[in-house]
Amino acid sequence: MTLPLAPALQACMASPIVESRAWVKGRTFPADRPLINVSQAAPVAAPPEGLRQAMAEAILSDTSAHLYGPVLGNDPLREALAARVARLYGARTGAANVAITAGCNMAFCATIASLAAPGDEVILPCPWYFNHAMWLDMAGIVTRPLETGDDLLPDPEEAAALIGPRTRAIVLVSPNNPGGVEYPPALLDAFRDLCRARGIALIIDETYRDFLAAGGRPHDLLADPDWDDTVIQLYSFSKAYRLTGHRVGAILAAPRQIAEIEKFLDTMVICVAQPGQIGALWGLENLDGWLAAERAEILARRAALEAAMTRLPGWRLRGIGAYFAYLEHPFATDATDLCRRMVDEAGVLALPGSFFGPAGRARGARELRIAFANVDAAGIDALAGRLAGLPFALASPGPSG
Amino acid sequence: MTLPLAPALQACMASPIVESRAWVKGRTFPADRPLINVSQAAPVAAPPEGLRQAMAEAILSDTSAHLYGPVLGNDPLREALAARVARLYGARTGAANVAITAGCNMAFCATIASLAAPGDEVILPCPWYFNHAMWLDMAGIVTRPLETGDDLLPDPEEAAALIGPRTRAIVLVSPNNPGGVEYPPALLDAFRDLCRARGIALIIDETYRDFLAAGGRPHDLLADPDWDDTVIQLYSFSKAYRLTGHRVGAILAAPRQIAEIEKFLDTMVICVAQPGQIGALWGLENLDGWLAAERAEILARRAALEAAMTRLPGWRLRGIGAYFAYLEHPFATDATDLCRRMVDEAGVLALPGSFFGPAGRARGARELRIAFANVDAAGIDALAGRLAGLPFALASPGPSG
Ligand SMILES: Cc1ncc(COP(=O)(O)O)c(C=O)c1O
Ligand SMILES: Cc1ncc(COP(=O)(O)O)c(C=O)c1O
Repeated sequence: MTLPLAPALQACMASPIVESRAWVKGRTFPADRPLINVSQAAPVAAPPEGLRQAMAEAILSDTSAHLYGPVLGNDPLREALAARVARLYGARTGAANVAITAGCNMAFCATIASLAAPGDEVILPCPWYFNHAMWLDMAGIVTRPLETGDDLLPDPEEAAALIGPRTRAIVLVSPNNPGGVEYPPALLDAFRDLCRARGIALIIDETYRDFLAAGGRPHDLLADPDWDDTVIQLYSFSKAYRLTGHRVGAILAAPRQIAEIEKFLDTMVICVAQPGQIGALWGLENLDGWLAAERAEILARRAALEAAMTRLPGWRLRGIGAYFAYLEHPFATDATDLCRRMVDEAGVLALPGSFFGPAGRARGARELRIAFANVDAAGIDALAGRLAGLPFALASPGPSG
Repeated sequence: MTLPLAPALQACMASPIVESRAWVKGRTFPADRPLINVSQAAPVAAPPEGLRQAMAEAILSDTSAHLYGPVLGNDPLREALAARVARLYGARTGAANVAITAGCNMAFCATIASLAAPGDEVILPCPWYFNHAMWLDMAGIVTRPLETGDDLLPDPEEAAALIGPRTRAIVLVSPNNPGGVEYPPALLDAFRDLCRARGIALIIDETYRDFLAAGGRPHDLLADPDWDDTVIQLYSFSKAYRLTGHRVGAILAAPRQIAEIEKFLDTMVICVAQPGQIGALWGLENLDGWLAAERAEILARRAALEAAMTRLPGWRLRGIGAYFAYLEHPFATDATDLCRRMVDEAGVLALPGSFFGPAGRARGARELRIAFANVDAAGIDALAGRLAGLPFALASPGPSG
């Protein structure tokens, strides 16, 4: 006998990251041709030494580093993030606008919980960040996919046509995962105006904002004195300061929204792990110069990949930015099949477009995502070489396995 | 203009802990008569030095301490916990039965998500742990309160009468929060038999198992070779090793249940913060002797409080164990009002019974919870003295405020 499982969770796909790990599990790769893993968007090195020392010192000598803290985060971190946002975006924000969360995924879950009930609807542009779609599925909320154009940008008029009486929010990710594309400020304004006119939230996930090519103010949404009647910003400390293993993210929203989010966070996690909060605060206070250099390096890799793509016959670069390039492949085969076979035939692990949209989305079969940020210029050359060398046989559908 | 808020979250009460903090906020207490805070069940000291050093060393020199880890937790921790459970309970468990979570609250949320859908029902004995009820409310699941007897133990026959076609689980907490009471093994067996016969889950939250007065095997549920067809155990590393600020808990369940839980955890938190996992593993490997001494100290405090209660006219000790004593007060006033006034009139912060049950539960007005574990024997004497000195005027309802 076994227990009946919750249908919503059962229907929800397993994480693509978990699935793709199975494609390489147990495989070995020649020492002179190691796997090029461009499947996951995460730093692979430790944070700078000063940050590590600040964490370690607190752990050794500060009792509060081991105790429950306030549900919404430690005040100094909330204040420092509010001040950073105020400066970067020309925004009027204070600590009361900030909730610290155990990563940006939780920021999304808590935000949705504060806005939507089962049966409500949320609009997600496609290709999408799969954990967003997964949480909506789990929460019984209907995802309305909004197909993007060839430039991977969603169209506000098409979005308007999807809004119904139960729509609660539009979710944008900029710079985009998986598409890489940076949303132009004017497009974001148009989405904000639409959302405000229809009384729904504009949720903008800015996990990758520190790597924007343009530099300067990422957009003007928060400079609007009434921003928090419509806009909810999500942020992650994971990528900026290499804190993925510490779980720190944030929500910027109206204080009344934060009060609802506080109930969710209290019940889900009680507080965010203290070492992560200590590291995030230290980063905000000390790592601006370091982060600028990180961004410059990623922009150099981006340029290298853009150049390499021009030499790859048949492939098309649909979007690039932050950690990601989004490609269209030239083969007759489905992208999932291609990505599986690329492990063996090219020693490359990338994720297929089918992972980033609803089941059966035809365009996903032609697309794949390359998370290039961990690959240096030499590696990017090698990657392009391996893609160029993929056997012609791929032009016809291979056996699926 | 403001955004509409999700009704389920809005209807959900704010956390009692957050509310009770407001009662003391900005108050000052005389230096010779400081506040005795028995409101929260949490260690107030740092973990032992060896554990802190293990964490700090990993942070300084182990890159993986800063990176995303497996969704279900690091393998060595899953294995060590499975081995501990196998030994302590005489259970057949392996790493495949274990999910590591960002605290035991998240363990509960993930477990419920794997079992129940909106509109389904879950049975909670009263008085209950409020975060359990809060999560069920937020998830749209109907809480069926099961009133307990004078001994704070629930009755399986009364539980059976509450089971309907949409009931998915019974949740027990032993040792109990808020009641303190340790559930007898035979009672747990009876609940397991009931749940098994009706095809529903028995969730048992054992956050406080390391402080059981009886010692030895806490119960026989997991010694049953088929335990995982019915039983799901929740655990917290927060109290055992003083890791509240690091967020580490666990779920023990059937592998097929763990596979569903993995989807939830991936979407909510991606992985558990690494320093906490490192600390929990170090604790399992090194702190058995230390933990035994911690338990002995808490048992001594428990004995001191039991003795003190016999000297308090009119008060009744309803339950005691782990971190908690559950009391019945002698006054005509409501417990919430009493607890608010005790801050001023006795310099004591305790939580009223009304926080631990559904709105309008009459018995809550007579009850209060004392989290005594952080108060040493002298403090317990002082506490009893202050309760004894509460003004007789409390015998009539005071002004509410
Ligand atoms: C768009 C986006 N949002 C959120 C996250 C989650 O980040 P965190 O580590 O803060 O949970 C990611 C991580 O890859 C992401 O790409
Ligand atoms: C019964 C019970 N379950 C779960 C928890 C949550 O513990 P954690 O810190 O592991 O989230 C607590 C904390 O007080 C508790 O009393």
